[in-house]
Amino acid sequence: MNHPSWDTLAIVGVGLIGGSIGLAARERGLVNRVIGIGRRNSSLQVARDAEVITETTTDLARGVSTANVIVVCTPVDLIAEQVCQIAQHCRPNALITDAGSTKAGLVRTIESSIGGAIRFVGSHPLAGSHESGPNAARGDLLDGRTVIVTPTDNTAAQDTEEITRFWTALGANVVRMDCDAHDEALAASSHVPHLVAAALASATPEEVQDLVAGGWSDTTRIAGAKPELWAPIFRQNRSHVLAALSHFSTTLDAFRAALDQDDVAELQRLLEVGKQKRDAINK
Amino acid sequence: MNHPSWDTLAIVGVGLIGGSIGLAARERGLVNRVIGIGRRNSSLQVARDAEVITETTTDLARGVSTANVIVVCTPVDLIAEQVCQIAQHCRPNALITDAGSTKAGLVRTIESSIGGAIRFVGSHPLAGSHESGPNAARGDLLDGRTVIVTPTDNTAAQDTEEITRFWTALGANVVRMDCDAHDEALAASSHVPHLVAAALASATPEEVQDLVAGGWSDTTRIAGAKPELWAPIFRQNRSHVLAALSHFSTTLDAFRAALDQDDVAELQRLLEVGKQKRDAINK
Repeated sequence: MNHPSWDTLAIVGVGLIGGSIGLAARERGLVNRVIGIGRRNSSLQVARDAEVITETTTDLARGVSTANVIVVCTPVDLIAEQVCQIAQHCRPNALITDAGSTKAGLVRTIESSIGGAIRFVGSHPLAGSHESGPNAARGDLLDGRTVIVTPTDNTAAQDTEEITRFWTALGANVVRMDCDAHDEALAASSHVPHLVAAALASATPEEVQDLVAGGWSDTTRIAGAKPELWAPIFRQNRSHVLAALSHFSTTLDAFRAALDQDDVAELQRLLEVGKQKRDAINK
Repeated sequence: MNHPSWDTLAIVGVGLIGGSIGLAARERGLVNRVIGIGRRNSSLQVARDAEVITETTTDLARGVSTANVIVVCTPVDLIAEQVCQIAQHCRPNALITDAGSTKAGLVRTIESSIGGAIRFVGSHPLAGSHESGPNAARGDLLDGRTVIVTPTDNTAAQDTEEITRFWTALGANVVRMDCDAHDEALAASSHVPHLVAAALASATPEEVQDLVAGGWSDTTRIAGAKPELWAPIFRQNRSHVLAALSHFSTTLDAFRAALDQDDVAELQRLLEVGKQKRDAINK
């Protein structure tokens, strides 16, 4: 089978997403080496034991020096700075991308710092989870999932094409979007749902802990994700999240008003709209 | 094995819950006959084909006439009236319960109408789902789940004991609660999460439908449930739901304020509280 391949893949931050990328690349025979780069040897060792990477290092400069493709999978507040560091140590022709849940801020920072000097295209695989760490990594995590790729006016067409081939080879469906359009859309489709789930879990009185069932568990599941990953996402996408939150609050107020006024027709109508939207996106 | 048994079980409303009760009772050999009572022959036939019941009828009076235990699994706005009808046609010694998600209103209506004349104890199995209908019924739906039983000062101790034996024999863990305490707790643990999930689904712009991932799907899943089952639940538990919704809104406002002020320490702290609550209830 004639599929694209890259000799060496470097992954900065080998957690759920980074680990799954490594595993998928290895299982699909797309790369010969997967270098996992992280802060702590202990967690890198976990990733190597799980065979999601083939080599480990805590030295960013050394780790990226031989790579053909570099994917930065760290929290969104670290990505821009790390890409700028990577630019100083990677091969001139290495293709760099990231897996951050926000795009506009970090892509702009990278372009204004080192644009033109490196091949960077922003990416966002829509494949998060409430789980984390390399032990949660799965070779099929990206299978059939959407990866949003966010080239700018400064991005070379061949770089966008190569990163598209990379994600496609890992099993994902690639969608191209403008950075700002991405951030606005994700505020509504991901960031506000996360904030609402966290507020819902937080607002649950301790005395009802034993009286929850499937509805509560589904609705709050994502609140179990790591705060240190999500606080930077909300901050980086602050204005869009606040706008989407305001839209959510307006909708919730309509439900509240219908209930307060005991307007059964309106309450039923609002629930019906929610059901139609939910059923239309049957994932 | 010496387990409790009842000759004939009648189930009024053979959907997910009613069907699962019938299936569990049959699989565990607790009853000889399961009479399914419903409005439409077509859906009763589905239930009989799925072998969750052994007999069907659309005639409530006839259906309950020979039953030893009667479980009313219809929407909460119908339960009180149906129990009053059942009282006129069932055996004097038949034990009647329900599976409604609200308790105070319907239990009070039943007691004030026919209290003393029948053996009725309110129940609420915490085992709902976004799915519905007899085809979704599962014999293990109640396995290890909590069923709240809500006796009042007027309930005979032996009736509470027998209904406890019934749910326990079906695999559930029984918790006894006062009706009002039940409704207040469930407003926070179930009804508000449901309303929030519906509002979240409803507030999602159509143009981001293709950009949702697991977080959105989990958080909005319960919004796929039937509005005609849930509108009556919200209305019957209106004051507690409005109070719990107000508490949720206050919590969400704290998240919004932290984000608006870019107070990273506070945002992180709020997310941490949500995570701790979620992790404490790991279902």
